[in-house]
Amino acid sequence: MRIIGIDPGLTRCGIGIIDADGPRHVSYVDVVVARSQADMAPHKRLEIIADAIDTMIGKHNPDVMAVERMFAEDNVRSIISTAQVAGVAMLAASRSNLPLALHSPSEVKAAVTGDGRAEKKAVQFMVQRILRLSELPRPADAADALALAITHAWRGGAMSPTAQSAQHGGAALPNPTTPGLTSAQRAWAEAERSTRLSGVVAAQSAAKRFR
Amino acid sequence: MRIIGIDPGLTRCGIGIIDADGPRHVSYVDVVVARSQADMAPHKRLEIIADAIDTMIGKHNPDVMAVERMFAEDNVRSIISTAQVAGVAMLAASRSNLPLALHSPSEVKAAVTGDGRAEKKAVQFMVQRILRLSELPRPADAADALALAITHAWRGGAMSPTAQSAQHGGAALPNPTTPGLTSAQRAWAEAERSTRLSGVVAAQSAAKRFR
Repeated sequence: MRIIGIDPGLTRCGIGIIDADGPRHVSYVDVVVARSQADMAPHKRLEIIADAIDTMIGKHNPDVMAVERMFAEDNVRSIISTAQVAGVAMLAASRSNLPLALHSPSEVKAAVTGDGRAEKKAVQFMVQRILRLSELPRPADAADALALAITHAWRGGAMSPTAQSAQHGGAALPNPTTPGLTSAQRAWAEAERSTRLSGVVAAQSAAKRFR
Repeated sequence: MRIIGIDPGLTRCGIGIIDADGPRHVSYVDVVVARSQADMAPHKRLEIIADAIDTMIGKHNPDVMAVERMFAEDNVRSIISTAQVAGVAMLAASRSNLPLALHSPSEVKAAVTGDGRAEKKAVQFMVQRILRLSELPRPADAADALALAITHAWRGGAMSPTAQSAQHGGAALPNPTTPGLTSAQRAWAEAERSTRLSGVVAAQSAAKRFR
């Protein structure tokens, strides 16, 4: 399974591609960071990002797109432009007939570092290690895009079934007791569940068993 | 000047077209409300809306697109999906080489009703009156899309120069004392300025002079 991960942003948009062969074996394919200048008209900026995503889809022919899931409660100044970029990325997936998955930042951090509240540095470090890269993926947007793709592979390719769940964070979290999960998948499910339910960082211990 | 106005929404997206001949003469061309079902995958929903916008652009060949301006402070549950739809609308404008203008809901309400905090009913009523329609434009999304286009015509086609201003509401408000404005344009500028600066509904009196 080839996965394209998108870390949406209008100034810098990370676009990463990995191959996943089995639930824990992932390998690096490509990554770019599409950039647009703040003094351009906003619709032209979106087109630059959209074109870069289309180019990566055309070049690497992925099977699925994973995009960062956003929440209405994310009270950040860039929420509108970030959601606009996510929208054009999702449109690119649909027009290329790719299924779409959305993963929240805390899910991604928990998946790759074991800590749903990890720093950007830790994500970069773990992405380098997991993909056996010779150096840290930079900027952070590149690491985040690859981390999204890795998360999707490790979550067993779970899809967000509806827009409702996609918008409001209601997508099914894998149940750690579900039969058929690998022990690693169970650990991530436990880690993510505890992070999400309690809001505390209880993920690390569960994840560490598999390092 | 032919204007396409977009009231973004994932469940219902208003797409209205008007012709503007001089600063106060506007006429109705077409309006549709694109709809997508909540049980569809979110990227497929965006594609349905994007296709409807592309169809209207292809059919009517507008000169400019006006989209509702959003703010990070809009603390509503639908902010993410609405911004995603705005993003695909803006991308459609850019790919069709249309300039883009963003107008906030209070600017639109002030322009068509004289009251920056008008109810949806008042906007529908005024759009019907301004465009000399035989009945109320329904649903409200249809009226809002046409109202956005009317607002753009009446503001003299002012563009949002940069993404910065587009995202953060910093677009130039017409100065009521600018030479060359018609008396009507001055009134709208005064109305909008007082609404925005004071937060109180002081627009009505300024606007009433021109009814």
